[in-house]
Amino acid sequence: MNTDLIKNSPEKVVESLRKVVGDDWVTNDLSQMQGYLYDETETLLRPEACKDCVVVKPASPEEISEVLKYANKEVLPVIVRGGGTGVVAGAIPTQPSIILSLERLNKVVEFDEKNLMITLESGATLSQLLEELNKNGKLFFPVHPGDEGAQVGGMVAANAGGTRAVKHGIMRNHVKALEVVLATGEIITLGGKLLKNNMGYDLLQLMIGSEGTLGIITKVTLRLYARSKCNGTLLVSFNSQRDACDAVPEILQEGITPLAIEYMDRVISEKAAEQLGTTWPAAKGSVDLMFILDECSEDDLYSNSEKVVEICEKHGSVDSIVAETEKDQRHLLQIRSNAYGPYKDNIADIMDVAVPPSSVPDFFDDVKRLTKEYGNEIVSLGHIGDGNIHNFIMGDNGKLPANYEQLKEEIYKTAIKYGGTITAEHGTGKTRKKHMPLQFSQAEINIMENIKRAFDPNSILSPGNIVD
Amino acid sequence: MNTDLIKNSPEKVVESLRKVVGDDWVTNDLSQMQGYLYDETETLLRPEACKDCVVVKPASPEEISEVLKYANKEVLPVIVRGGGTGVVAGAIPTQPSIILSLERLNKVVEFDEKNLMITLESGATLSQLLEELNKNGKLFFPVHPGDEGAQVGGMVAANAGGTRAVKHGIMRNHVKALEVVLATGEIITLGGKLLKNNMGYDLLQLMIGSEGTLGIITKVTLRLYARSKCNGTLLVSFNSQRDACDAVPEILQEGITPLAIEYMDRVISEKAAEQLGTTWPAAKGSVDLMFILDECSEDDLYSNSEKVVEICEKHGSVDSIVAETEKDQRHLLQIRSNAYGPYKDNIADIMDVAVPPSSVPDFFDDVKRLTKEYGNEIVSLGHIGDGNIHNFIMGDNGKLPANYEQLKEEIYKTAIKYGGTITAEHGTGKTRKKHMPLQFSQAEINIMENIKRAFDPNSILSPGNIVD
Repeated sequence: MNTDLIKNSPEKVVESLRKVVGDDWVTNDLSQMQGYLYDETETLLRPEACKDCVVVKPASPEEISEVLKYANKEVLPVIVRGGGTGVVAGAIPTQPSIILSLERLNKVVEFDEKNLMITLESGATLSQLLEELNKNGKLFFPVHPGDEGAQVGGMVAANAGGTRAVKHGIMRNHVKALEVVLATGEIITLGGKLLKNNMGYDLLQLMIGSEGTLGIITKVTLRLYARSKCNGTLLVSFNSQRDACDAVPEILQEGITPLAIEYMDRVISEKAAEQLGTTWPAAKGSVDLMFILDECSEDDLYSNSEKVVEICEKHGSVDSIVAETEKDQRHLLQIRSNAYGPYKDNIADIMDVAVPPSSVPDFFDDVKRLTKEYGNEIVSLGHIGDGNIHNFIMGDNGKLPANYEQLKEEIYKTAIKYGGTITAEHGTGKTRKKHMPLQFSQAEINIMENIKRAFDPNSILSPGNIVD
Repeated sequence: MNTDLIKNSPEKVVESLRKVVGDDWVTNDLSQMQGYLYDETETLLRPEACKDCVVVKPASPEEISEVLKYANKEVLPVIVRGGGTGVVAGAIPTQPSIILSLERLNKVVEFDEKNLMITLESGATLSQLLEELNKNGKLFFPVHPGDEGAQVGGMVAANAGGTRAVKHGIMRNHVKALEVVLATGEIITLGGKLLKNNMGYDLLQLMIGSEGTLGIITKVTLRLYARSKCNGTLLVSFNSQRDACDAVPEILQEGITPLAIEYMDRVISEKAAEQLGTTWPAAKGSVDLMFILDECSEDDLYSNSEKVVEICEKHGSVDSIVAETEKDQRHLLQIRSNAYGPYKDNIADIMDVAVPPSSVPDFFDDVKRLTKEYGNEIVSLGHIGDGNIHNFIMGDNGKLPANYEQLKEEIYKTAIKYGGTITAEHGTGKTRKKHMPLQFSQAEINIMENIKRAFDPNSILSPGNIVD
């Protein structure tokens, strides 16, 4: 990698890039680059950003193509930057790099009501997408990773998940077409407004979750769905994690598929409520399940809510609260959204493992044991219907705890022991790359490296993420 | 490729393979190989099978690994054979080859009710899977490509679709884990009983739809769903294809997602019924839509059926029939399943394009024009909710029509003009491989070739399918 050129002669890089995108859209002035050096990776965890960078803001796939042809010829690292909401250091440059921001590709291209699809430039945000859907009023896009500043291209590159995956799945299930600029400059279109497509290998699937390493996504076509008519939120409390977990599969087997099934340690909910100046409505029990149901009629909503409560009671629930009004629902969701707030200042790392849903209780037991063994105050919440648990490993007065690496690796190994994965939705990025061999055989890693080279022969795109 | 060894010294190959799987499970006796040389590709279309083959029937992934290590060392082509129900010549050896049949890997490994998943060896058939689900009674697997002799491994390798994709999608949406033997002999496990998994590149997705070219699938874990409680079938008739097509998006926007929405030219339904010694229940109109609805209550079924009929009437439907009893429903479905029967003996090729659903009426108009222009009696049916149309190109008294290649290419180009695909569910195989450049740029094909090599460096697996 020719990082010396960027480090020692940035003016040459700036000049070459200005020829492509115009004078106003390239900078290597540190004060202007500050907002481009980090993403939302935990402060204690994130690598130090390299300051010897050049930020470029192209306005079209054609300009991106020219930028990449130049970078590929000179063998310069290119960090793709979306909304910067990632948490695995995927957008942090750790060597002299071109930072390619997609902020100017921010248009809604087409709202195709007839095909129930929407096409956006990759730099359009989730917030823009939701606004567009609100204007329409009839159609709905299910994936919501939390932060509405996320760009849709980034949501594809990260294969975003979130709370609503129980019913609707993840980004992969809804991405129908992509426009992509390859590292070598070709602009290609993958997929289409198609619900079935079996010609050739499905490169679209590879691009989803590729974290900027296989190409730069410039346009995204997403499938939309009819809005459901009635929704409600249920909060059910239990005395034990195992009881709470065991209720979930029985609900799904019954044919009830909530939009979301969220698990929370009570301590998290109470702290989150307190920080917002309110109180958590449940008092009995030590853990809670929150169910969001969306159904096609009031009758279905009512009868399914009843069945959920019934099944939970069979599994030892000690209390249940139905949030009937929109205000009550908003109250619960607001507290859930603030789960991270009270811990933010002293968090070392947020785990993101998934295990088979039936193994969640055993996984929780193992984490309890590790919490004791390592003397860390781990707290947990998760998208329990998906088997996706977020354990917060706490810092040691604003520093990583001494045994952080071992504790983290123990949690990863525990998940893998149950047939799980190190990361369910946050991604591999730079922070988990070194743990690839825990989950994959050398044969698999070799294949991934060769796939990387098939797309990006000089490994210029987002180096340091996933594989090189 | 060292095909000479198989052609000139088959006894050496037989002997080497017998050392791995035992004497009884290897043969190059033509009379015993007859059932292994062809699949369900149309007779007029299929390539001539090479008879210089050796059939091997391993019993385990370990034996498959040994077979592949041998084949890879000697650089011998290996044709993977599942249920032989494919229609794109994917399982037909066109050069001296080892035919590796998965028939002995036919066990149901685990019915995991708690995780709503089932694991089967890849040679287990769809019929076995359905039987297992019937024993259980509560859970359901949605994908049904028609022929229950299909093996689950083949259904994954072909990314099978079928009629029920409107509501439940295709195989890709339900495959959670695979055990795969690589061409180089490593046995790997991709995915897990996981609903979210973002570690590394998703090789599982590449394996789905790879048609035996990237590895040999030996075990499959599928997601299951709760059975829906009530279902019904509606037959709605129209005077024009366009009217019928235009009703469909409005139904979906209304929040009604039928299990299936099937389109049929009336002439097909009438002939299919006649061949079965019965009559097609609809008389008015010239084309039909068949809706299969499955809902969670009788009320929902009733009100959704009413809404479907209402929307169709708005779009000019001329008749509608509700099949209320199970007997009436079976009657309709039986005729639909026989659509192919009356044409079988003189069919040249069954097209399998998909276009964006809203473009189906225009696509139909183009096909009408081509039918006239080429003097071929093309008839059409399709999974219209998915934009997936099967046009039957008819033969010329038991031969391919003189202008077959041009007509086919015109239909492919027409689909691509609307942003469609050459094959929605049948696959690329050997019959469509040469048309890859119609749909893909050279850059994409290069990437696919490099992916093939990343998995299978000597290109021994199912050569001739997709890319070499």
